[in-house]
Amino acid sequence: MIKPKKEHIAVVLNEPRYPENIGAAARAMKNMGFNQLLVVRPYRFDFEKIAKMATHEALEIVESLKTFEDIEEALAPFNYVVGTTARTGRLRRPNGSPRDMAEHIVPISQENQIALLFGSEKWGLTNEDLKYCDYLVTIPTDGFASINLAQSVMILCYEIAMAEREDSLFQPKRASVHELENMYSHLQEVFLEIGFLRPENPEYWMRNVRSLFSRVGLLSKEVQLIRGLCRQFLWYASNKDQSRHPKAAEEP
Amino acid sequence: MIKPKKEHIAVVLNEPRYPENIGAAARAMKNMGFNQLLVVRPYRFDFEKIAKMATHEALEIVESLKTFEDIEEALAPFNYVVGTTARTGRLRRPNGSPRDMAEHIVPISQENQIALLFGSEKWGLTNEDLKYCDYLVTIPTDGFASINLAQSVMILCYEIAMAEREDSLFQPKRASVHELENMYSHLQEVFLEIGFLRPENPEYWMRNVRSLFSRVGLLSKEVQLIRGLCRQFLWYASNKDQSRHPKAAEEP
Repeated sequence: MIKPKKEHIAVVLNEPRYPENIGAAARAMKNMGFNQLLVVRPYRFDFEKIAKMATHEALEIVESLKTFEDIEEALAPFNYVVGTTARTGRLRRPNGSPRDMAEHIVPISQENQIALLFGSEKWGLTNEDLKYCDYLVTIPTDGFASINLAQSVMILCYEIAMAEREDSLFQPKRASVHELENMYSHLQEVFLEIGFLRPENPEYWMRNVRSLFSRVGLLSKEVQLIRGLCRQFLWYASNKDQSRHPKAAEEP
Repeated sequence: MIKPKKEHIAVVLNEPRYPENIGAAARAMKNMGFNQLLVVRPYRFDFEKIAKMATHEALEIVESLKTFEDIEEALAPFNYVVGTTARTGRLRRPNGSPRDMAEHIVPISQENQIALLFGSEKWGLTNEDLKYCDYLVTIPTDGFASINLAQSVMILCYEIAMAEREDSLFQPKRASVHELENMYSHLQEVFLEIGFLRPENPEYWMRNVRSLFSRVGLLSKEVQLIRGLCRQFLWYASNKDQSRHPKAAEEP
C-alpha cells in the first residue's frame, strides 16, 4: 500500500476574511501532519489572532506561511490543484467527495506538488479561480452546505491522512500551473488569430479547452510540444502574407 | 443498506470552556444533519458568542440546546455512549477510529439513543467520565494530538453522516445510562456487603464490572433481572442472622 506524500501537499487559502480561520486551519493541518500553508490576499492579517487560534504547536506553520498578492502566482509551482466548492452548477460539477479525492491523489502525490485550494468565507471560489482546478471536491452536507473554512480544511486533510492505495498506480510528474498558464496564453493567442475565440469573451471557449487538458493531465514535455506548435503557427500567420509557402520556423 | 438514524444521535459537551466552540460545534452539527446538543456545566455560557459562531442557520440548535449541572443526568436517557479521547493509556484503550465507530453504531442507532461525549478543551474526558462510555474513539493524528473541540465534533459527525451498513444487523434496544447507573449502585452495595470491594476504593473493581457489562450491551430486562438478584441477595444478607434458611423475598 502507498500513503499520500503529505510533504507534497499544501493548503492555499484564497482571500480569507478572518485571521482566526487562518490560525484554526494551521492547527488542523498540524493535527493531520501537513506543513505548507499559502495565503492569497488575506482580508486582515492579524498575526496575534492567527497565532492564538493556531496554538503553540502549529506556530511553525504560521511563521513559515507565505502570502501572495495573486492566486496564479501562489499556484504557479503546483502540478495538481484540488478546488473546494459548496455551490454546484454547470461550471461546478464536483468530481467527488473528500474521500474520493483523497484516494485519487494518493498516487499523484508521489511525484507531484498538490494544492488544496479554498475560497473566501464570503463567496468561496469564484468561476475565475476554478479554472486552475484539476479536481473539484464538494463536502457532502445535510441541508446547510456552508461549512466553516477551517472545518473544510480539517475534513480534506483528515481524509488525505486516512487514505491509502495499492502500490501499483504510478503517476508521472505533471506540468506545473506556471507552465500550463503560459501554454494557455499561447493557445489563446493562436485561437484569437484564427478567429476561434471572440475577442470580447475569450474565456468562454478557453474554459472547455482547460477542462479537456485538465482531464488529460499534461506532462511538462507535452506542454513544450504544444507551445512549439503555437510558436510555429504564429510564425506562419505573421508570414503568410509575404509567401504562400512558408518555410519552417527556426525554433520549432 | 441502512444509514445511521441521525435523530437518535446527540452531541454532549462536558464542561466546554469557550462559547465560540459551542457555537462552532452547533454549526458543524447542522452541516452534517444533527440537531440535539447537550451542554454540561459550561465554563461561560455567552449566548451571543455562541450564536455568532453557530451562524443563523444553526441558531435553532443553539436555541433548543439543553444545559445540565451533572454529566450523569445529561446521559441518563441514552442507551449508548461514545467517548472521545486524545490521550490513551491503561484506562483509555480506544475501540477504534471515527470511521470504525461510525460503522459500528449504524445498526445500534436504529433502536437506541446515542450520545457522542466530548470533554473540555483543557483536559478532555476524565477517567470518571469514561466510566459511562461504551465505546472510546481516538481521532488519528500525526504528531500533534490536541484537536479543537468543534473540529472533533465535525469529524465524528462527518464520519457518521458518511457511514452506511448492510441491512441485516439488527440491534435491540439497550438499557439506558439511568437504568445502568442504578444497577451499578445496587451491585456495588452487594459487593461491599460480601467484601468483594474495598470500602476505601470501591471504584477500582467496579471499573472492570462496568467494562464487562458494557461489552455485553445489557438490555432493559436484563438489568431488571440483575437488580432482582441484588434485591434478593440484600434481603438474604439482612436476614441471615435471624434464620439459617431464609425464605424467598416478597419482591424477587
